[in-house]
Amino acid sequence: TPDVQLVLGAESFPPKPRDGHKGRFGTVLIVAGNRGMMGAARMAAEAALRIGAGKVIVATHPEHAATLAIGRPELIVHGLDAATLLDELLAQADAIVLGPGLGRDDWAKQMAARVLSTQLPLIIDADGLGFLPPSAAMNSLRIMTPHPGEAARLLGCTVAEIEQDRLAAARALRDRFGMLGVLKGAGSVLFLPDELRVCGRGSPALATAGSGDVLAGMIGGLLALGIVPSEALPRAVCWHALAGELLAEQSGAWGAVASDLFEPIRAVVNGRANG
Amino acid sequence: TPDVQLVLGAESFPPKPRDGHKGRFGTVLIVAGNRGMMGAARMAAEAALRIGAGKVIVATHPEHAATLAIGRPELIVHGLDAATLLDELLAQADAIVLGPGLGRDDWAKQMAARVLSTQLPLIIDADGLGFLPPSAAMNSLRIMTPHPGEAARLLGCTVAEIEQDRLAAARALRDRFGMLGVLKGAGSVLFLPDELRVCGRGSPALATAGSGDVLAGMIGGLLALGIVPSEALPRAVCWHALAGELLAEQSGAWGAVASDLFEPIRAVVNGRANG
Amino acid sequence: TPDVQLVLGAESFPPKPRDGHKGRFGTVLIVAGNRGMMGAARMAAEAALRIGAGKVIVATHPEHAATLAIGRPELIVHGLDAATLLDELLAQADAIVLGPGLGRDDWAKQMAARVLSTQLPLIIDADGLGFLPPSAAMNSLRIMTPHPGEAARLLGCTVAEIEQDRLAAARALRDRFGMLGVLKGAGSVLFLPDELRVCGRGSPALATAGSGDVLAGMIGGLLALGIVPSEALPRAVCWHALAGELLAEQSGAWGAVASDLFEPIRAVVNGRANG
Amino acid sequence: TPDVQLVLGAESFPPKPRDGHKGRFGTVLIVAGNRGMMGAARMAAEAALRIGAGKVIVATHPEHAATLAIGRPELIVHGLDAATLLDELLAQADAIVLGPGLGRDDWAKQMAARVLSTQLPLIIDADGLGFLPPSAAMNSLRIMTPHPGEAARLLGCTVAEIEQDRLAAARALRDRFGMLGVLKGAGSVLFLPDELRVCGRGSPALATAGSGDVLAGMIGGLLALGIVPSEALPRAVCWHALAGELLAEQSGAWGAVASDLFEPIRAVVNGRANG
Repeated sequence: TPDVQLVLGAESFPPKPRDGHKGRFGTVLIVAGNRGMMGAARMAAEAALRIGAGKVIVATHPEHAATLAIGRPELIVHGLDAATLLDELLAQADAIVLGPGLGRDDWAKQMAARVLSTQLPLIIDADGLGFLPPSAAMNSLRIMTPHPGEAARLLGCTVAEIEQDRLAAARALRDRFGMLGVLKGAGSVLFLPDELRVCGRGSPALATAGSGDVLAGMIGGLLALGIVPSEALPRAVCWHALAGELLAEQSGAWGAVASDLFEPIRAVVNGRANG
Repeated sequence: TPDVQLVLGAESFPPKPRDGHKGRFGTVLIVAGNRGMMGAARMAAEAALRIGAGKVIVATHPEHAATLAIGRPELIVHGLDAATLLDELLAQADAIVLGPGLGRDDWAKQMAARVLSTQLPLIIDADGLGFLPPSAAMNSLRIMTPHPGEAARLLGCTVAEIEQDRLAAARALRDRFGMLGVLKGAGSVLFLPDELRVCGRGSPALATAGSGDVLAGMIGGLLALGIVPSEALPRAVCWHALAGELLAEQSGAWGAVASDLFEPIRAVVNGRANG
Repeated sequence: TPDVQLVLGAESFPPKPRDGHKGRFGTVLIVAGNRGMMGAARMAAEAALRIGAGKVIVATHPEHAATLAIGRPELIVHGLDAATLLDELLAQADAIVLGPGLGRDDWAKQMAARVLSTQLPLIIDADGLGFLPPSAAMNSLRIMTPHPGEAARLLGCTVAEIEQDRLAAARALRDRFGMLGVLKGAGSVLFLPDELRVCGRGSPALATAGSGDVLAGMIGGLLALGIVPSEALPRAVCWHALAGELLAEQSGAWGAVASDLFEPIRAVVNGRANG
Repeated sequence: TPDVQLVLGAESFPPKPRDGHKGRFGTVLIVAGNRGMMGAARMAAEAALRIGAGKVIVATHPEHAATLAIGRPELIVHGLDAATLLDELLAQADAIVLGPGLGRDDWAKQMAARVLSTQLPLIIDADGLGFLPPSAAMNSLRIMTPHPGEAARLLGCTVAEIEQDRLAAARALRDRFGMLGVLKGAGSVLFLPDELRVCGRGSPALATAGSGDVLAGMIGGLLALGIVPSEALPRAVCWHALAGELLAEQSGAWGAVASDLFEPIRAVVNGRANG
């Protein structure tokens, strides 16, 4: 169909502006990380920093609030017992990532409900997808990032049906849930308001735990930088794919872990992937 | 005897399939890590990721559940008070590693009993060996990984007797406990249903705390990838040995620690040990 | 005006004295890190070590006292419930950094009040600035490090007004609050008792979360080494700027995080930035 | 005097034996780390591993028992409320390091008393020195590692008096406290039963927080390997000095932190300091 485009790359960023201070590069709020899933929140948060966001705040389960920043001290971390405490953090955010390791319990439900009531640019990933209303009109500030299993649950069909016609599944997700997004997997399908795009790049190094959290954080970082969702989404998907290729080239695809992506992401964003 | 074979290597993996997503590469459940022994669980878990498993879940003592993932955020970690809570995690697992740092107390006993009642591919290592029934018919989905001290306890003899005839000890372990396995130490002896193999490679760099936890995790990762135990065991033992050689070559055998093995493991698995 | 000077660099240190022991290189006390902001304390503390201080003690919120040193075991960390417990630590300090991630609650207020009652060389950064008395006579042992937003709050004007005449703002801060300092941002303005200086170096890599914490720690380290505030301040600002340039040159300005500065700082201080 | 010898180096180790398993390389017990001083325990413990000990157990304050191993998962860590719990750990130890970050409170006192009642090879460092009996007959299994400040307290004199005649101070420490040891500082003086030696190597990179903890751990590792104290002490002091030189050469002496020593230690021990 004429509305599908094959995408093979994305330009690296122009040089970072010299007159900027961290406030100029935006603040991402990551709402993520239920018990046992601190790492998903951490990886999404670090990805937002690594793509250039000025500041990243994590709203997470109180269990690990005091420990999440140990490995990445640049993060600001708040353990929230109740979603009402989100209000103060939402007031500081330029973009939100909802979902990595969020879980499906009552705590998760409350957090998701509060976030879904805002009008900020928002990525909904992983467990966050389970809290979407069954249908919605197009809101071009929102981006969803399901993998085929999540897409199947959302569309009430099987994974095999999703994989059989990925373009149709992408259109169905867009039309039913009223947002932009990407159907992940080899040959990611991006669905934008007026067209579909297929990402022709990528690497099996990306087929590993946490890789999706990193992608969600990357999109969040670009939104916080002020890039519109219809540009931020394809850019992040391409850079994630290229970073995976670079990682596989440097040290092999087997046994790469998601944290290994941060350096390649920086190389791609700064236009140094070939140096 | 004709059923003994000397093994000097294992081929690296073929390229990681391009069309895979993390689900295709399996889920390992690590049941490990009593008080004070969080590190053993962490090292087995990371080894499973580093050999290529798609996802690793750790079921561990509640004391450090909130902290175990700090250094490796790709891990999903659950602190379990009681073994009944294992059921939900077992339902997600393709293979299990039982034992690293498990301890011998009541908590350990309960965890071991629940795991030993499943029919999933299973590695039993370290303290997990203390919970084996005194004898069993051959179950070719199970692998045991004792060092000579553990073998002596299991067979009711001295370490000197084990070392005097390692081949006989290996046969006795197989025949009594009804599973595949490896008797560790310089010149590891693998016992498979129909033959013994002696691994002729290795390095004293491997004679360090945590090295066995890494081997157990490697085997677990291969089982989760769908490789049958009789192939996964020799492959993991060889790659562990070759990774130790590579580490010693790169930075010396004295003072290497088990975490230093992760990069050499990746190099060996990806066929880059000579580059 | 004749009292403004453009500064483009600072010499690296002479070789570290051979006959020194750690006591000779001074002790920095970092009073910082309320709930959720452990990382700010950690980054200021590590920066003090990385510039050469002999010993760094962190007085922080009890919530994360047991975890702050995990990533940097050279730090001594005390969780303080009440400011009275500061006395023993103040007795060991040669210089103090007050403020990174301090917060604005009662705990922060108590800590700030106790620190502001001492006569030790003192850097007041970030949230610490909110506890300054409205005016004071010149105390040349004190240094303030506001960014434009903080300067605007302190002077009761808008950020735009600050940016419109940064030199005037710097003079106003000095004259009202009675201390040396730096008005941060591209083209940092240093205010010393008798002159202003503008730092002509720097990089957008520094426009990231935690970068200011690192600068505060660097100044603290130099004060603890016995360097007078009017020399320590310009030296730290220059080295911070040069370290940012080096980092951007090495791996790009986008996505650099503040912890990435530690190695470049060492290179600059040791005169190895070109090697 | 004829009993003083200048020492300029120590041979690296012969190749690590191929037939060893971790038990052959001994177990070090580190009794260290009161509240706020977890890092001292961690650094001594890692140093013991890095010099080649097969296994390291840390007995530490319960406050951080669950977190100490996060950064070095190869460590086995026990939080002890009372010294009676040490008995089980002492039974596994080949050598003990007492003191880094031990503190001077009642918990520390109990721990020290229990350790000082054993007959195992023992290093007494830092706060551990405060619990020595006022005099003792020579016990050639014990090693003390005071810096000049600690030596002055032990001998009831001033630091200036210590520094004025370091050889005499070393002899006095040996004769009064009945053990081998090293008086640290530039030109460390080793006191052995029948002679003194002065270490003519070293670097100001070693004048930093945690450097002494690393030295104590190194000696502990050598003792656990079965090396006699009169050989282990000079060897560890020399290697520590050479590792400091190598570190300064590689990246400069200013701003080096104690953890930076681990890689140079391995290089020196494995005879790769020039490669």
